[in-house]
Amino acid sequence: MWRGIVEEYREFMPVTDNTPVVTLYEGNTPLYKAEKLSGQLGVEIWLKFEGLNPTGSFKDRGMTMAVSKAKEEGAEVLICASTGNTSAAAAAYAARAGMKAVVVIPHGKVALGKLAQTIMYGAEIIEIEGNFDEALSIVRQVSETHPVKLVNSVNPYRIEGQKTAAFEVCDDLGEAPTHLAIPVGNAGNITAYWKGFNEYRRHRRSGKLPKMLGFEASGSAAIVKGHPIEHPETIATAIRIGNPASWQQAADAAKDSKGKIDMVEDEEILAAYRLIAAEGVFCEPASAASVAGVIKLANSGYFSENDRVVCVLTGNGLKDPDTAMNHGINVEARVVPATEEAVVKAIFK
Amino acid sequence: MWRGIVEEYREFMPVTDNTPVVTLYEGNTPLYKAEKLSGQLGVEIWLKFEGLNPTGSFKDRGMTMAVSKAKEEGAEVLICASTGNTSAAAAAYAARAGMKAVVVIPHGKVALGKLAQTIMYGAEIIEIEGNFDEALSIVRQVSETHPVKLVNSVNPYRIEGQKTAAFEVCDDLGEAPTHLAIPVGNAGNITAYWKGFNEYRRHRRSGKLPKMLGFEASGSAAIVKGHPIEHPETIATAIRIGNPASWQQAADAAKDSKGKIDMVEDEEILAAYRLIAAEGVFCEPASAASVAGVIKLANSGYFSENDRVVCVLTGNGLKDPDTAMNHGINVEARVVPATEEAVVKAIFK
Repeated sequence: MWRGIVEEYREFMPVTDNTPVVTLYEGNTPLYKAEKLSGQLGVEIWLKFEGLNPTGSFKDRGMTMAVSKAKEEGAEVLICASTGNTSAAAAAYAARAGMKAVVVIPHGKVALGKLAQTIMYGAEIIEIEGNFDEALSIVRQVSETHPVKLVNSVNPYRIEGQKTAAFEVCDDLGEAPTHLAIPVGNAGNITAYWKGFNEYRRHRRSGKLPKMLGFEASGSAAIVKGHPIEHPETIATAIRIGNPASWQQAADAAKDSKGKIDMVEDEEILAAYRLIAAEGVFCEPASAASVAGVIKLANSGYFSENDRVVCVLTGNGLKDPDTAMNHGINVEARVVPATEEAVVKAIFK
Repeated sequence: MWRGIVEEYREFMPVTDNTPVVTLYEGNTPLYKAEKLSGQLGVEIWLKFEGLNPTGSFKDRGMTMAVSKAKEEGAEVLICASTGNTSAAAAAYAARAGMKAVVVIPHGKVALGKLAQTIMYGAEIIEIEGNFDEALSIVRQVSETHPVKLVNSVNPYRIEGQKTAAFEVCDDLGEAPTHLAIPVGNAGNITAYWKGFNEYRRHRRSGKLPKMLGFEASGSAAIVKGHPIEHPETIATAIRIGNPASWQQAADAAKDSKGKIDMVEDEEILAAYRLIAAEGVFCEPASAASVAGVIKLANSGYFSENDRVVCVLTGNGLKDPDTAMNHGINVEARVVPATEEAVVKAIFK
């Protein structure tokens, strides 16, 4: 049985025998060959589906590390300012650890329905009469003055956990792929993968390094455009970030690996979202930015015939049924009489 | 890398070298020790979280078998009459196999939003001007007269796939638990687990058999009450079934294993649903029937100190955010001024 990423990759993790490992057996997510996309694009495409982590996103990898270290350090409360996958992961691992999770958000800006999963796990929600920047600033302050551990992306252990997804890709394929494509929001995940690939190569677990391809949504493409975006907008809410925390590291990963950071339009993201589902994989809209970017590059002749491209799908589509209903699909059903003949006719048209 | 249940348990599966295995690497789901519940109930409680299968429910185990055999037999179309997890699984595996999935439902009875995941995978929805029984009858007829494979629970390969969850439980624990608790709707899953435990024991992979504990929702408890329920009602929609297809097999599993089929109230299901989330696991409401039943039995002194109880959680809570919002949680957030002091006060009260 898979024991979670800290135990499975212990030699690469900043833990000791004294670290109480808090785990939901995250990681070990499937890597699917995308047969249809590979055929269409003429290059081998694989999908690393992080949506099958315990809370439905890659954030669980970072959270097992962050919460284990928080517990080791004696913290009793986890805190974050997040409305999405980070808060769900923080809440679940806090529950597992017997700790309290507190999520601070701006009052009146976030539908509590978006936080249903987080609240189910028992997190407490505090709404401040201020904006998101103030929420971030307050959680930082509180974590510096009280026995409260900040688990937002500034927590350095998050990247240590997230790098294990690169290990798994190498283990499954036998070596690193030629290209690793990934959505870029706060830019922590591309940083983590690049760190993971480098560590695996140094330990001779992989003979080569991939080119790193990061894709921002065009409405929040700070790195591509070279300046923060004041009012980021995209349907891919999980990467709707105008000033990435790991901006420089992401830019370095792209440069050092001879890859690139590029951007994709919302329409390209939605088209990719549907193509991924047609492979049998239902991901979050933001996840599809990796595939959208690869399609864009493939159509411009970027890849060679023998390339092998792994696209990271960061979250589970079940997290965002609204986008599926409003943008993903044609929800019209055909209505026919209740007879075998009518149904057969409808099937075979 | 885990290769899916057909490859991993090939010697137990009705496949040959000619069977094209259609897989999304289902199975290998986590088995969590429920620390808080174990402490509260004084008996060892484990949670088998089937919600981390590729489409979010245990149905994927049966579907990989059913679709692989359908493809081997030359079918081009899969058909089912289902509004829930079965249709999602059928649609995803059809996409993977390059086949078409058709879902037949009564017109005007089902909100298409419930089918968002299924439609995303590319299934076609046909609404008939009739009721659910007519839909079931029509899909049976169509599958007998056309190259269309029925993947509803009457498909015998479904149980062959589902039995592998029992294998995993034995592999993870080293042997079968003393008790296996499971929600009962159509009663196929309890039948499958019992088959799996028996096969593993025959092959000496486990030295013993568990007592099988099946739990129906009281509003649809046909087996417990001894007669079909004409208008089944329960918040646990995935087990809202008034006339279980595998009624006799479920009753036999309970009797032969010296276990029992019992029922739980919706309030008990919702209470268990929250307790499971407090362990860090977000499941479907219907899944919680297993834990609700175990709590009921534990409170009546049913278990001994050395018992080890595995509760099956059949689906992912992300499939049903409405129940989380309406029944699972207290959605009120505290609103405080945007100051460190106010947030600290709110955290520590």
